[in-house]
Amino acid sequence: MLPEGALNLQELEQLAREKLTAMAYAYYASGALDELTLRENVAAWARLPIHYRVLVDVSARDLSTTVLGARVSMPVLVAPTAFHGLACSDGELATVRAAGGAGTIMCLSSLSNTRVEEVCAAAGGPVWFQLYVYRDRAATEALVRRAEAAGASAIVLTVDAPLLGRRERDVRNEFHLPEGLRVENMSAVAGHAEVALRSASSGLAAYFKEKLDPSLTWKDVAWLRGATRLPVLVKGIVRADDARRAVDHGASGIVVSNHGGRQLDGSPATASVLGPIADAVQGRIEVLVDGGVRRGADVLRALALGARAVLVGRPILWGLATAGEAGARGVLEALRAEIDHAMALAGCASVSDVTRDLLVPPGP
Amino acid sequence: MLPEGALNLQELEQLAREKLTAMAYAYYASGALDELTLRENVAAWARLPIHYRVLVDVSARDLSTTVLGARVSMPVLVAPTAFHGLACSDGELATVRAAGGAGTIMCLSSLSNTRVEEVCAAAGGPVWFQLYVYRDRAATEALVRRAEAAGASAIVLTVDAPLLGRRERDVRNEFHLPEGLRVENMSAVAGHAEVALRSASSGLAAYFKEKLDPSLTWKDVAWLRGATRLPVLVKGIVRADDARRAVDHGASGIVVSNHGGRQLDGSPATASVLGPIADAVQGRIEVLVDGGVRRGADVLRALALGARAVLVGRPILWGLATAGEAGARGVLEALRAEIDHAMALAGCASVSDVTRDLLVPPGP
Amino acid sequence: MLPEGALNLQELEQLAREKLTAMAYAYYASGALDELTLRENVAAWARLPIHYRVLVDVSARDLSTTVLGARVSMPVLVAPTAFHGLACSDGELATVRAAGGAGTIMCLSSLSNTRVEEVCAAAGGPVWFQLYVYRDRAATEALVRRAEAAGASAIVLTVDAPLLGRRERDVRNEFHLPEGLRVENMSAVAGHAEVALRSASSGLAAYFKEKLDPSLTWKDVAWLRGATRLPVLVKGIVRADDARRAVDHGASGIVVSNHGGRQLDGSPATASVLGPIADAVQGRIEVLVDGGVRRGADVLRALALGARAVLVGRPILWGLATAGEAGARGVLEALRAEIDHAMALAGCASVSDVTRDLLVPPGP
Amino acid sequence: MLPEGALNLQELEQLAREKLTAMAYAYYASGALDELTLRENVAAWARLPIHYRVLVDVSARDLSTTVLGARVSMPVLVAPTAFHGLACSDGELATVRAAGGAGTIMCLSSLSNTRVEEVCAAAGGPVWFQLYVYRDRAATEALVRRAEAAGASAIVLTVDAPLLGRRERDVRNEFHLPEGLRVENMSAVAGHAEVALRSASSGLAAYFKEKLDPSLTWKDVAWLRGATRLPVLVKGIVRADDARRAVDHGASGIVVSNHGGRQLDGSPATASVLGPIADAVQGRIEVLVDGGVRRGADVLRALALGARAVLVGRPILWGLATAGEAGARGVLEALRAEIDHAMALAGCASVSDVTRDLLVPPGP
Repeated sequence: MLPEGALNLQELEQLAREKLTAMAYAYYASGALDELTLRENVAAWARLPIHYRVLVDVSARDLSTTVLGARVSMPVLVAPTAFHGLACSDGELATVRAAGGAGTIMCLSSLSNTRVEEVCAAAGGPVWFQLYVYRDRAATEALVRRAEAAGASAIVLTVDAPLLGRRERDVRNEFHLPEGLRVENMSAVAGHAEVALRSASSGLAAYFKEKLDPSLTWKDVAWLRGATRLPVLVKGIVRADDARRAVDHGASGIVVSNHGGRQLDGSPATASVLGPIADAVQGRIEVLVDGGVRRGADVLRALALGARAVLVGRPILWGLATAGEAGARGVLEALRAEIDHAMALAGCASVSDVTRDLLVPPGP
Repeated sequence: MLPEGALNLQELEQLAREKLTAMAYAYYASGALDELTLRENVAAWARLPIHYRVLVDVSARDLSTTVLGARVSMPVLVAPTAFHGLACSDGELATVRAAGGAGTIMCLSSLSNTRVEEVCAAAGGPVWFQLYVYRDRAATEALVRRAEAAGASAIVLTVDAPLLGRRERDVRNEFHLPEGLRVENMSAVAGHAEVALRSASSGLAAYFKEKLDPSLTWKDVAWLRGATRLPVLVKGIVRADDARRAVDHGASGIVVSNHGGRQLDGSPATASVLGPIADAVQGRIEVLVDGGVRRGADVLRALALGARAVLVGRPILWGLATAGEAGARGVLEALRAEIDHAMALAGCASVSDVTRDLLVPPGP
Repeated sequence: MLPEGALNLQELEQLAREKLTAMAYAYYASGALDELTLRENVAAWARLPIHYRVLVDVSARDLSTTVLGARVSMPVLVAPTAFHGLACSDGELATVRAAGGAGTIMCLSSLSNTRVEEVCAAAGGPVWFQLYVYRDRAATEALVRRAEAAGASAIVLTVDAPLLGRRERDVRNEFHLPEGLRVENMSAVAGHAEVALRSASSGLAAYFKEKLDPSLTWKDVAWLRGATRLPVLVKGIVRADDARRAVDHGASGIVVSNHGGRQLDGSPATASVLGPIADAVQGRIEVLVDGGVRRGADVLRALALGARAVLVGRPILWGLATAGEAGARGVLEALRAEIDHAMALAGCASVSDVTRDLLVPPGP
Repeated sequence: MLPEGALNLQELEQLAREKLTAMAYAYYASGALDELTLRENVAAWARLPIHYRVLVDVSARDLSTTVLGARVSMPVLVAPTAFHGLACSDGELATVRAAGGAGTIMCLSSLSNTRVEEVCAAAGGPVWFQLYVYRDRAATEALVRRAEAAGASAIVLTVDAPLLGRRERDVRNEFHLPEGLRVENMSAVAGHAEVALRSASSGLAAYFKEKLDPSLTWKDVAWLRGATRLPVLVKGIVRADDARRAVDHGASGIVVSNHGGRQLDGSPATASVLGPIADAVQGRIEVLVDGGVRRGADVLRALALGARAVLVGRPILWGLATAGEAGARGVLEALRAEIDHAMALAGCASVSDVTRDLLVPPGP
């Protein structure tokens, strides 16, 4: 299902690397500063042994679940990542078709190279809209309304980026969007001229600093809830107390995330904080997670720790870069096959069977 | 005792690698996916220091023990591994002669290149028959009866393989049996045509998916017990609660095993779960273990954690590949010498002296 | 802000290495013996995950704080390090200007290549004077008075060096000061002839052994307090009981430090002892820390563990070596930018927001 | 003090390696099997941070102590190691002169290339005699009496070697003594013909197996005590209960040792068991330790854990190989200098100041 030449997502990354410009690959692959969190995100899953159960009837396996009430064919969503136009000519249109084809949800980054209206029009499944809150609240609200009107079914508020994380590879490469690519959702907004991302070295960081609102607080979650009829998820949480605050402020869900290791380097791996956060939330709202998921077994680990589903980011980009829509779809199908396989081997016929005791087995 | 050029089992593997085709070596050596469990199986034993005792009379050392009532010359059995014909022309006949010569039990894989009848006929000691349960229960039962009739003395039910683990090296190599080798026990069974294992890339996996029964549950252990007068061992357990279920369902023993890291990658090392499982079983049935045993001291560690004996898989294959029956026998004798030596140095004159305090010494 | 070619302090070290003589680079970079503590100082910070908070208004960030009542623009001071003349022709004058320009305090080593009077005269901010106590107490007292008269605002008593640590790189290089550089503060003192540091292999070690007083005890802190009206900090503490003794003996502050891994190899990393020490001090005096701080996030970790501020040593030297005053200033500004960024991403608007729960988050 | 070209014991080993035959170097350097314990012995010391004290008067440092009532200039003894004739032409005579010159005790291996009478005659300080108990008790007793008559002041009974550990490097090299070297203490004994150690591959192992008594028990300690007026130390203990047994059976001391990682591979590092053993002994007899001591700070760690002194083995051999008596003496003096330095930096004026709190500091 993966593009020819790749048996797993690690190998796919190598294929993608050959297809991408060095600048684009580095933009996708990099993490902040010393990339401690980037590496730890991946490593922390692998440190959790799975105490599989035997002699369970796994002849009929059901990977489907619901996320915010929407049925998905498996507990894997497409994470919001920026600038799919760097990976393939169809950009986010390829991604949304892949997600829909795979029976799951795409979470569209507001920093897409395709307008949310076009993405939603091409969608074969639900689209969530990832939001940064701008200093210009009217522009922000207008953007939310556009997403709503386009048919997005949830707003995913990113809260771990009052400033852009410093990715030294991008600074070294003077990362900028190549000719022809724009931040389409924003380019219509006054003052969000595309040129911001064309300037050398600090284009994206300067844009964030100038436009985004670092004064955002929990009260603004209430504001956002008032500005849309869509459910709001809060993305970027790594602490149990913040998770409880999200519950208290009416979020419909949270995404345990450190932004793929791209914001605060030294953040804990999501695998290491997911359990305590899920325990704190006690099922009152849904808990999603992203960061370092590279194998189907990682999805099992996340579910066992209490996640409703995981979001997958970079691997989708490697699929797009290698084979466009088919590549992204291949990534999702490869993960589905790995999850299905891991569930069978772990003695789980459905996602509700993936419980904490797989990681913390009952003692003597 | 080992073939010329090898002082230990690690060196023997290198000799064997030179003798085997790349495809066969990879089939024997590989683990599932990222091979996390494959590596951890070996590493986890080495992390357990042995607090040896001094000034114990070890002039007369007795390595013998009983397993399910049968006396064996040492607490090491031959683990069930498939396709010994890949290693040497005599295939499983070489193995069973080596096991008998060494005074121990061979556990014959149902996926052998030699019929169970021939293997038992050549045996100089007990043969256990490893069983996969097929969707076709009549065929399964017929197989059990053949083993019984041939003289096998126990059935070892593998429960960690509702599907075949994904070994990427085999997928890459398009693993298949070479011309002339067949799954002999099955080739007589309707619908189990040898061709299944001849097809490229997913031969064995497809065979498992098509033929094996992933709906197997603990109730089927009762069914199997009713279908044979032989004792039944349940192989592939990594959890204390599953071990207790095996006791409750009348198993005569269990094998703590993760299938040599070839099934669910991310399974715990057997060395890390053996202790709690033995504690849970409380001696009601016998607990065996396999996975990563490469030194005599590993056998001591396993006994100290509560195992009755260990099963050794890959090293036997390296012996077969290097020198046929003599090579396999050499592996067993080398392990015997190492166990004998380690027992002497640890202050243990008999296997019953190998107790938990060697690993968890009494405090001040 | 850093010199061209360096995006971070690690890269800066490489630039500096090219500018310095091998002898000077080794003198600055080395630690004692096997350099266990040198490496562990850096590694221990990185092992502390930062559980950042979200949705905190970080639009206005204030990095300023006070240290011993003096306002500094950020919680970073210049650590005392010897012989800045090895790095650039202006020596400590470059450093003190950089510190003042950055709005912080320079702690001047008594082993400077510039007299304390000149350094203080050139200062744009507070200067602390690091002191070794000599066997010749009169000479020591005279030195303290000179510092006092020159305008230094605190005495930092180094207590981890009754003898000089053995840095094998220096022994191998026969470290000595090159022609033209002298230990200026001492050269006026009878018996402290510069030649001591000119002799091969053990120049500095012999000087320490001959001149410094290894009989120093806590009573001498009282003596020192009587000898000066300046506040006294005790530098080199790694134990909670010693920290309490510093409180009891009237120190105004302590510096948790192992001398950058240059004294007792095998000392604990400061990151690993800071927390217990801060807990023992209970805010009665100020606790500073140095050792292995290479990123702004390390400063956050130190504050979260209870430090008032950190001192930075080697990176200042790399700045000096690469671009003199501008280089040292660049190091401070780069750290400021990193701290500012890390505070924003961690949800801290001021240094008082950097609390222990960032490292030990509240549980479920 | 070390031979030219070596600043520390690690570097000295490299010099020695160039001087020795490959066979002799391997014999000295190797450990059993996978050399897990060999490596861990060294690594475990380095993992123990030393929480040094400050502002202690360390102007007068006294490294001397007593061991079994005999004064030694420092808490370092020469461990018993075999065949010093492989290292230098004077063999054990060089070693005993070095030990005496350094003011400490040499523990002479019974497997020496020089007779105990000659060694004691050349000694400038106490000589202890290391003993293996032979199946032939009369020969053993005769040997003890010879040591006693020669002037040895203690018998060190090795109890971790009922069989010789398997050192695969020696097996590969077919280790044997070169022409001209003999096991002198034994060559006079009937049946201990030198030829045993001349035979290929298993010379020493076969000798052990044939001659040594693997039936030795704690009762034989009583026998040995009755056979000599000398104090008896029991060497090779890694468990607290065995240490208590040594007390109960009248030993004057024990040596916590795993035979330098040359006997049971997988034994715990001595640094990891010394503390509990010292706690169990509660000062009733003296506790010595060997294994992996390579720096003066390791000696401090050992004393802090409760050792009276440490024994150093391989480094003495590297000194002998590089420069004979002067080289061995240099090793002892280098260690003395490092211990002295480490004590000064740790705030210890005498060995009685080296207490457990250096490793486990008092909490807040």
